[in-house]
Amino acid sequence: MASIGSGSVVAASAQVAEDVIIGHNCIIEDDVTIEAGSYVDSGTIIRSGAHIGRNTFIGSNCIIGEYLADFCRDRVRHDHPLFIGENSVIRSGSIIYGGSRIGSEFQTGHRATIREGSMIGDHVSVGTLCDIQGDCHIGSYVRLHSNVHVGMKTVIDDYVWVFPYVVFTNDPTPPSETLLGVHVESFAIVATGALLMPGVTVGADSLVAAGAVVTKDVPRYAIVMGSPARVRSDVRKVVGRVGGEPIYPWREHFERNMPWEGMGYKAWLKTVDEAARKRLELLTMEVPSEY
Amino acid sequence: MASIGSGSVVAASAQVAEDVIIGHNCIIEDDVTIEAGSYVDSGTIIRSGAHIGRNTFIGSNCIIGEYLADFCRDRVRHDHPLFIGENSVIRSGSIIYGGSRIGSEFQTGHRATIREGSMIGDHVSVGTLCDIQGDCHIGSYVRLHSNVHVGMKTVIDDYVWVFPYVVFTNDPTPPSETLLGVHVESFAIVATGALLMPGVTVGADSLVAAGAVVTKDVPRYAIVMGSPARVRSDVRKVVGRVGGEPIYPWREHFERNMPWEGMGYKAWLKTVDEAARKRLELLTMEVPSEY
Amino acid sequence: MASIGSGSVVAASAQVAEDVIIGHNCIIEDDVTIEAGSYVDSGTIIRSGAHIGRNTFIGSNCIIGEYLADFCRDRVRHDHPLFIGENSVIRSGSIIYGGSRIGSEFQTGHRATIREGSMIGDHVSVGTLCDIQGDCHIGSYVRLHSNVHVGMKTVIDDYVWVFPYVVFTNDPTPPSETLLGVHVESFAIVATGALLMPGVTVGADSLVAAGAVVTKDVPRYAIVMGSPARVRSDVRKVVGRVGGEPIYPWREHFERNMPWEGMGYKAWLKTVDEAARKRLELLTMEVPSEY
Repeated sequence: MASIGSGSVVAASAQVAEDVIIGHNCIIEDDVTIEAGSYVDSGTIIRSGAHIGRNTFIGSNCIIGEYLADFCRDRVRHDHPLFIGENSVIRSGSIIYGGSRIGSEFQTGHRATIREGSMIGDHVSVGTLCDIQGDCHIGSYVRLHSNVHVGMKTVIDDYVWVFPYVVFTNDPTPPSETLLGVHVESFAIVATGALLMPGVTVGADSLVAAGAVVTKDVPRYAIVMGSPARVRSDVRKVVGRVGGEPIYPWREHFERNMPWEGMGYKAWLKTVDEAARKRLELLTMEVPSEY
Repeated sequence: MASIGSGSVVAASAQVAEDVIIGHNCIIEDDVTIEAGSYVDSGTIIRSGAHIGRNTFIGSNCIIGEYLADFCRDRVRHDHPLFIGENSVIRSGSIIYGGSRIGSEFQTGHRATIREGSMIGDHVSVGTLCDIQGDCHIGSYVRLHSNVHVGMKTVIDDYVWVFPYVVFTNDPTPPSETLLGVHVESFAIVATGALLMPGVTVGADSLVAAGAVVTKDVPRYAIVMGSPARVRSDVRKVVGRVGGEPIYPWREHFERNMPWEGMGYKAWLKTVDEAARKRLELLTMEVPSEY
Repeated sequence: MASIGSGSVVAASAQVAEDVIIGHNCIIEDDVTIEAGSYVDSGTIIRSGAHIGRNTFIGSNCIIGEYLADFCRDRVRHDHPLFIGENSVIRSGSIIYGGSRIGSEFQTGHRATIREGSMIGDHVSVGTLCDIQGDCHIGSYVRLHSNVHVGMKTVIDDYVWVFPYVVFTNDPTPPSETLLGVHVESFAIVATGALLMPGVTVGADSLVAAGAVVTKDVPRYAIVMGSPARVRSDVRKVVGRVGGEPIYPWREHFERNMPWEGMGYKAWLKTVDEAARKRLELLTMEVPSEY
């Protein structure tokens, strides 16, 4: 039997694995599944039908599988379960809606918000105070640092880095009924405080500088900066401050928590299955002229 | 008798309507009034004297009618009640201080903060993580998207749209004891990440572009952009990407959740009472030359 | 015996002074110390080993002395206690990690986050939604307004003002393993929405304008603005809007909550001990030519 703290209310229909630990004053609603090895800290609410994978940690005062807007109006419990994969860490104060699907090895900072219809891959990290508005796709190995705002219809491919206070907008003529999401291609880097205007594509391996206001598509490998952002350089020309060594494309120089950790990107690329390699090779082999 | 969850503490002097539902581990303090049809989700605290209108939904882990700074120092409970109108939705994690008055059909996102002395009209929406510092006026049908910071002394008229990460500042020579609030006139649009400097007036029907730093008054109908923001165009010249149709003034082209929904702005204008119409006609009839 | 609300769980090894008040549904873990006159509001968790000074107020739903990342992974409780000094006010929803040391007369707004390894002086104020990432030094009499992001390795000296949505970055070539913190010298002012690039020094008495992107060191007394930020003026040339009176250096014109309140900076300077005076006189006496 799971260990359940004082003041907690666990529905009879919840399926909680034997070794799960649940803190004080938690609420686990109907038909929730919590797999083996998981931990739910005090004060957290898990809404009906949510599925929590093995060995996942959920911090205090979270709301997991939150009801959609119709619940606020009609108080009728929905049928939009949330799935969170195994080995994940949801830090305290986070709110994740039902109707989203999140992969394994997921991490959040504190008080992240993720709305319904968010499709999120594996090994993704979403920082403190991030606000993901739902109806979006985020690939695998994506890292959103603190306080990133992801508007609806945003598409972020794999291996993308987004730094604090970046905003992905979506309405070209506010207020309107038109939503044009931003698309960020694999290996791109969006630095602190950049604003991405509706419908732009940020090319693979590119770097959007801090504070840039991106109003047009960003070409592959480009460094864009300013407001409006313009191409100023090529990431392949950037060298380190100390040794003058190349820094970008970062996949060839940074390994921590990436699947190529310990072997390097190029060696790892030879180990992945054909479909993945083709997709990644396309990125790796194409060599536009420098900016 | 209201339905009250386990672990909740409801003061004897609280007036809670019969059909109200209160979740688990809530605290309802002295002299709180909760009108019929309302719902208070688990873990929420409602401070003494707060008044919650009919059919209002309050999410989990909110603090409603929070005590002012003197309570932190002296632990003496104040006499600054909060009023929230009917049919409102306060989403989870929000903190609303006592000493504010909020109209009906109010909505917040998650973890909004509203300090004392905030006077807010009807049909207002305040997004996730918004930080309203108090001592301010917000009209009706105003929509603040996520993470907007409203400094003290800000005045926002009716039908204004404010997009994520906009900051309304108020100190012209920081740090100082002088606070000059920003004034935003009706139907203006302030796009993502704009910074509004102390004391500026943003004219009716104008559009402040994303990332603009507004250091001077914005004329009516103007589009301003850049840092410092300058007039670059006129909203009446903007046309849609697809059909080339006019987009602004938006009140003539956007209806959702506005009082003219289903009939159009011009037809609706004929239906409002004389005082309101005069105020709105003044806005509608005046036609400055284009920029 | 302390007053403890219903639903609260207080460990037998916790040392809670007799007159302390603890609200409902709190969790006070092993070996916590709460000194006399303190108050812990409902729903707050205080982790093992945390030390709360005399007469400190902790609002609702806080997590004080939070466990580090290894706890999420291994569920092993750490030995990284948190120290918070006397007469402090931690507002509701704040999360402060273990392994930090915070002085007296500390204040936070709501939902501040402070990670491990934060060394914070006395009389510091950290606003609503601030996100201090840890491994940083913040002096005394520093005021961070709402929603400031302090990256690891940041050093902020005494008497510094930081306004909303300022970001202190630290990675010169993201993503990398190199962290270069920003250094802000005493009496500097960083206005709303400024971005500070990795490794820059912001000189004493300088003013970084709203929205500036600071890519190079800011000289003493300089006013910098724009993106990238450039020196545009000297703070000593700024005069008030009304009387034409000088405004800066602000320490000679602003007193509220400063140690020189009621006597003025220059008179106070004569009263401090020799070591402090020498450090401050160095700042006061040096007079670079104007910009």
